[in-house]
Order: sequence, then structure tokens, then C-alpha cells
Amino acid sequence: MMSKTIRRLDASSRDFSTQLDALLAWESVADSAVEATVAEILQQVRARGDAAVIEYTNRFDRRQLTTAREFCLDKSALTAALERIPAESRQALQSAADRVRSYHEHQLQASWQYQEEDGTVLGQQISPMERVGIYVPGGKASYPSSVLMNAIPAKVAGVDCVSMVVPAPDDQLNDLVLAAAAIAGVDEVFTIGGAQAVAALAYGSESIGRVDKIVGPGNIFVAAAKRAVFGQVAIDMIAGPSEILVICDGKTDPDWIAMDLLSQAEHDEQAQSILLSPNAAFLDAVAVSLEKLLAELPRREIAAQSIRERGALIQVSDIAQAIEVSNRIAPEHLEVSVDAPEQYLPQIRHAGAIFLGRHTAEALGDYCAGPNHVLPTSGTARFSSPLGVYDFQKRSSIIFCSPEGADKLGRIASTLARGEGLDAHARSAEYRVAED
Amino acid sequence: MMSKTIRRLDASSRDFSTQLDALLAWESVADSAVEATVAEILQQVRARGDAAVIEYTNRFDRRQLTTAREFCLDKSALTAALERIPAESRQALQSAADRVRSYHEHQLQASWQYQEEDGTVLGQQISPMERVGIYVPGGKASYPSSVLMNAIPAKVAGVDCVSMVVPAPDDQLNDLVLAAAAIAGVDEVFTIGGAQAVAALAYGSESIGRVDKIVGPGNIFVAAAKRAVFGQVAIDMIAGPSEILVICDGKTDPDWIAMDLLSQAEHDEQAQSILLSPNAAFLDAVAVSLEKLLAELPRREIAAQSIRERGALIQVSDIAQAIEVSNRIAPEHLEVSVDAPEQYLPQIRHAGAIFLGRHTAEALGDYCAGPNHVLPTSGTARFSSPLGVYDFQKRSSIIFCSPEGADKLGRIASTLARGEGLDAHARSAEYRVAED
Repeated sequence: MMSKTIRRLDASSRDFSTQLDALLAWESVADSAVEATVAEILQQVRARGDAAVIEYTNRFDRRQLTTAREFCLDKSALTAALERIPAESRQALQSAADRVRSYHEHQLQASWQYQEEDGTVLGQQISPMERVGIYVPGGKASYPSSVLMNAIPAKVAGVDCVSMVVPAPDDQLNDLVLAAAAIAGVDEVFTIGGAQAVAALAYGSESIGRVDKIVGPGNIFVAAAKRAVFGQVAIDMIAGPSEILVICDGKTDPDWIAMDLLSQAEHDEQAQSILLSPNAAFLDAVAVSLEKLLAELPRREIAAQSIRERGALIQVSDIAQAIEVSNRIAPEHLEVSVDAPEQYLPQIRHAGAIFLGRHTAEALGDYCAGPNHVLPTSGTARFSSPLGVYDFQKRSSIIFCSPEGADKLGRIASTLARGEGLDAHARSAEYRVAED
Repeated sequence: MMSKTIRRLDASSRDFSTQLDALLAWESVADSAVEATVAEILQQVRARGDAAVIEYTNRFDRRQLTTAREFCLDKSALTAALERIPAESRQALQSAADRVRSYHEHQLQASWQYQEEDGTVLGQQISPMERVGIYVPGGKASYPSSVLMNAIPAKVAGVDCVSMVVPAPDDQLNDLVLAAAAIAGVDEVFTIGGAQAVAALAYGSESIGRVDKIVGPGNIFVAAAKRAVFGQVAIDMIAGPSEILVICDGKTDPDWIAMDLLSQAEHDEQAQSILLSPNAAFLDAVAVSLEKLLAELPRREIAAQSIRERGALIQVSDIAQAIEVSNRIAPEHLEVSVDAPEQYLPQIRHAGAIFLGRHTAEALGDYCAGPNHVLPTSGTARFSSPLGVYDFQKRSSIIFCSPEGADKLGRIASTLARGEGLDAHARSAEYRVAED
């Protein structure tokens, strides 16, 4: 059966590997005009601080700021927004925040030490970062759930000060975003955005303290600015379009699976939704569901283009082959909609988040299950992890050598240092060796 | 007392903060000529694979390769080198490797799960990366200890394949480096270097498998290439010049402390050695020791320039102030050469590695104490950690919702999704809500 809604592939066909590569192909385009604009903004903010931030904010966000004070949002504005939003939204945000906090507390890492027989002590000390900046997009892409997902892990880690930047184009701010900031415990808010906000966080200004790490999604200017300040400060990953891969045995309601695929597709035209199933009739049924449900969606144009251009229904021989294909894709979101899904966990090697069982829609994880929704995209789950508490803690090695330990280690170090031609290293070690 | 060997500062002076900023100022220079050369090399290797690798290797390393086979080093070459090196070196490498492995095993992270009352299960699954590339410089900067420090954490993490690249300029290889690769359990070695080696690891070629992460130090071309492929693969930090900060109460032998400072200074002219002490006479004594010991060092020209241009002896009022200054600097290496040094650990917030006590020379940690010698430089200890097993593991979130859990979470997710205008998300969640 051919459908214009979504492409069909068969994992047993001879050219499947090539087809899969073509399906997955996506590359962020480096835009040298954007990079040049961003470099100029960074340089101006670094050199002129608040004055440059005010100029760019007035120009790009159509505002009339005259002093830096005006882009510093008072904390009372956050609590006021929290009181203003509907009770149902407030409760939902609070429940989501509680669950996210509780899950992330499991990620806290503890310092450790051990002592060797000769009295030498080795260990690792964990400390939180001091200051973290969270970028929150303005306008339509302003998601309160992202505020929770970025700020809560930092606060759980023990970060002293979480600074949020959110642009207020035409002086408009989103009450749900401010309410989420209140709930998440954000320490300060600046109503600025774009590369100028990233620059202010990375270098500091008269009104904005320099941070150690910048996290959170943004447009192409924000992404380019984060890439440019990487090294000066830490950054989170630069995200590509969002993706979902569903593995289904054919026994979940096809409407459910179709809507799961569409929940990814409605994000943007480049989002990718893929279903793997050994059941051809089920793939047919999901194709029908997709067409039917698409027509009902407010964001149907975006979702239809995503499904048509980047989506796929792929027939596999069995669940084992589906997992092989999934490991090759290393999806951001993986739904395993089968009986006894936990049996497959040991075979799943690369995925940002794994949603097990027919009731575990990705959307539950996006908002409130507890785990983070900031996940590695575009196959980077091969080497990256969800955003977590560990992203806001860092480690220091601890070494204490007893005189006996130093004697033993000094001899080894001396030999190795001389092998590398580093005499001061060797002599520094030898001072700690006991005379024979 | 003025000394031409090293500058003296006083933390109580009014302009100390400005002086300290000037002392620490260091910025990696982006060189657009280097970046353009690297971009061309990356593009050529990506497009033409082995053929381009061979061409660049012959040109830059003065070799006469005709086939890719010739840059693939047989594993027997590693064991042959291990047998060829002096027994003392072999034993020292083996002892160091054993201690490094044993320390890093403490860093292994384990998967975890927990079940909620309604049957919902949340967790985090840890998996090793599949393939990791290690860059080892050729020629004089070829350090066997770096092979151990980069490869062992990857093998402890459970990485399937560790691929090492090391250039062989004029067909020369360092036996100690090959022996260290044998001991560390490196899986394959390619005798190539420069941006062409980074490109081959990042994109793969006919003979070289694409890796998930590239670690290890290199020259400016290697650093630029790593920065350019960041995102396509993971990379470790791009290191700046190495630094040591020593805090001493004045009761350690000044020759010992001077040699510790010199062991950093002998690395290169931009390395930075700083001593903080409340004891002015001790600072004088160390200045004298520095002058005396410098004269005895084979690498005295490098070390003298480093000490003169970037070194400092800083008088502080007490150890507490020394730690304040240290936290501001966030040094790569911190020696705390005092009585009962462990009492100060809770106050030490930012440092790559902390060396406690008079017998714990940094050189012991550089080679064989156990912790890694790949550490965050230039103040990046504010947000970065030593290289470790955690750099080669990644996490996947696990979510299993029971029907009861999905019912509860679906309601929250639906409210939040509708607040963000994402209807497919809301409906996907609502399918999992039980009908009232």
C-alpha cells in the first residue's frame, strides 16, 4: 500500500542501509553571515557591557530600554505571575516540578575517598558550579516545561545562583514561563535574549554576573553564540531537530502510536518520527490513523510536512531487528510499545530516553514523568546523555601521599619522568623518596 | 626583596585584584589561517577518505606511504615495543597503569531504577560508548603517560574499541608510547596525526572506523580540528597551558616547593606556577631556591621564561585567604603543603586536582598516583572535571508508566501541553488517561 502521508521502508530490502542513511541525513548548516553578526554582538557586549545589551535589545526586541535596571526582573514579578495563572496550570506545573526534582535527586553524585595500606588517600570531591545561566526563548517557542527541565537539575546540584534570560519582544512576557521560574527556584531573571544575552552571561556586565555554564534552547543566533563562547564557559549540547522512534509489536491501538508520532512532528517541519514494526498490517493501520488524525490537528501543516518529508514506517523481521536498527539510529526518544518491554533494555545501547510499554507516551516524559526532556538529538545519544544534575556538578581529584606512599610512587614517577625528558618532574618526585 | 627570577605580589595590596587579573590573562588565539587549512583538510578527508589521509601524511610527516595498510600498525608491533624497552621502564609503566586502572574503577557509574507506589518505574541506564579515538602527539611531545591517562578510563568504562592515532614523522615512533598502548589495552593504532587524523576518526574512512569521541592533546591544528568536528563527535576539553598553584605554610623545604613550581614551568613558556604563603621569609627562600635550581635544569630556558613571565610568589594573610585566592583562580593543580591539609578540603571549591601534604608532589599525580593527569586548565575547573570513566559512559533515561501512573501523569501532561499550544502532545497523553 502506498501512502502520500508517510514513506514505507523494509529493513530486509537490499538497499535498506542506503535508504536509512538518506532518511537520517541532516546537518546543521553553518551560516557565515549569522556567525559574523554574532561575533560582532559578542565583541560589543564584551567591550561595552550593559550599554551594548540595551542597544541590541531595543533593536531586536522592539523595546525602549534606557537603563539596565529595566531588564532586571524583580522576583516579585515571578510570584505575581504564579498567582495570576489558572489554578489548574499552577497545580500541573507544581506537580511536574515535584516529580522532576524527585527524579533528579537520584542523580546527585557524592564525593568519595579510599585509603591504601601505606596511608595514602585517593578520592574525588564533587562540587556544584557557582553560577549557571538558563536561556529561555521568547514568543511562541517559550515553553514553561523547559524552564523546569533546565533550572531544577541546577538547583538540585546545589548551584548558588541560577540566572535566567528570556527576551520580551514588544515588552511581552509569558506568565507561564515566569510562574515556572518561580516554582523552579530561579534566582534572577533578565528580560533579554539573542546573542547579546549569551554574551552577557558568558562575559558578565555591570548588571549581569558572569556564569560558569549556559544551558537552554534558542534560535540560530543563540546557538551560534553558545558555540562561540564554548570554552570561556561550559554549554549544553546544541540541539538538532527532535526525533521519536517507536518500536511496536502491532498490539497497541494504532491511533495511540500515530498520535505519538504526530506529537513529535508538530514541533517543527524538520522533526523526525519513525515507527518500526514486524506487523505489516499494523503499519498500514497507523498510516490510516496518521492521515485521519493529522486533519484534526491545529498544527497540521507543520506536522504533515514533517511526517511526509522525514517520517517513515519501517517493517522489520522481529523486535530484535528493530532494536538493531534503533541502536544504529541512536534516537532521542525511543518508545518500546510491546509486552514485557523491560526484557529489551539490555539490548538497547544508544537512546536519549526509553519509554517502556503501551501506556508510556513520550508526551508524559516531555512534561512530568520526572526524567529530563533535554535529550541528545541527531544520533548524538551515541556519546551524550540527557541534561542532568551531573551537568552542574564537577569533580576534583584528591591525592594525599603518606611518606611511605610518596617513597614508592616517587620512584615510579622518577623513572617515567626521565623517560619523557622532564627532569624537574623527576627531581620533584625524588625529593619525596626516602634515602636508601 | 626584588628578584628578576619571579614576580612578588601581596594579596593585601589595594590593586591586588587587578594584578591578579593581569597575571592570569591568557587567551587562546583563534588563527583564521589555521582554521582555513584545517577546514580544507577535514573536507578532503571526508570526501576522499584514505587517499587524502595518505597525501597529507606524506606531506606533513615526510613519509612515503602508498597504501592505507602502511599506516595501520599491527598489534604485534605494540607487544614488540613492550619487550624492547628497558625493564625498569616496563615495570614503571605497568605499576602506573595498575594504579590508574584501580583508581578509575571507583568512577564507574551504575544503572539505577526505582518503582513508585502505582507501579511506575523510573531510572537511568548507563552504557559505554562503542568507539573512542585517542590522539597522541608525535616527536618530542609524545608522552607515554598520556596514553595511559587517556586509554585506561575508556577501557574501564567498557568502550568496545579504543583507536589510537600517533604520527610517525620521518617514520619515527616512540617505543615507550607503543609499550604504553600495549599495557593500556589500546585496540588499534594508526600512525597518522594532525587534522587529517582527527578527520579520519570523526568521519571514518575505508580503513578507519568512525569514533564517537576524540580525546587527547595536540598542536594548534589538532585543537582546531577537534573544535571543528565537535558535535559530529564528542571531544574532550581543548587544553590551555598547564598551571600549578601551591599553598604552603612555610614549613616545607623551599627546594621542594621550588622544584614543584619548576616541574610545571618546564612544560612550556606559557605554563604558570604560583605560590601562596603567609610567610614572607619563606617566599624569599623559595625565590633563592628557584634561581639555584633553574641553573641545574636541562630545560632551564623554557622554565626560566615561564617563571619570569607567568610565575608569581604571593604573600597572603593566612591559609584561609590563600584558599579564597585559589578558588578565584580555579587552578588545574593545587598543592596544599601544610599540616593537616585535609581540614581545608571543604573550603576548596574549584580545582582540577588537589595534592594534599608536603609529600604529595604534583609529579606523583602526573604519573602514577592513580587519578588522571588530564585536567581542566585556565580556570575551567569552575565548570569542568578531570578526564574520567564518566567521559566514556553515557546515560539513557528509563520511563515505564503503569496504567494508573499514566492516568495520573496524562492529566498533568495534557494541561501543560495545551498551555504550550501542542495539541498532539496533549492528545497523545490523553489516550493514556482512563475514562472517568
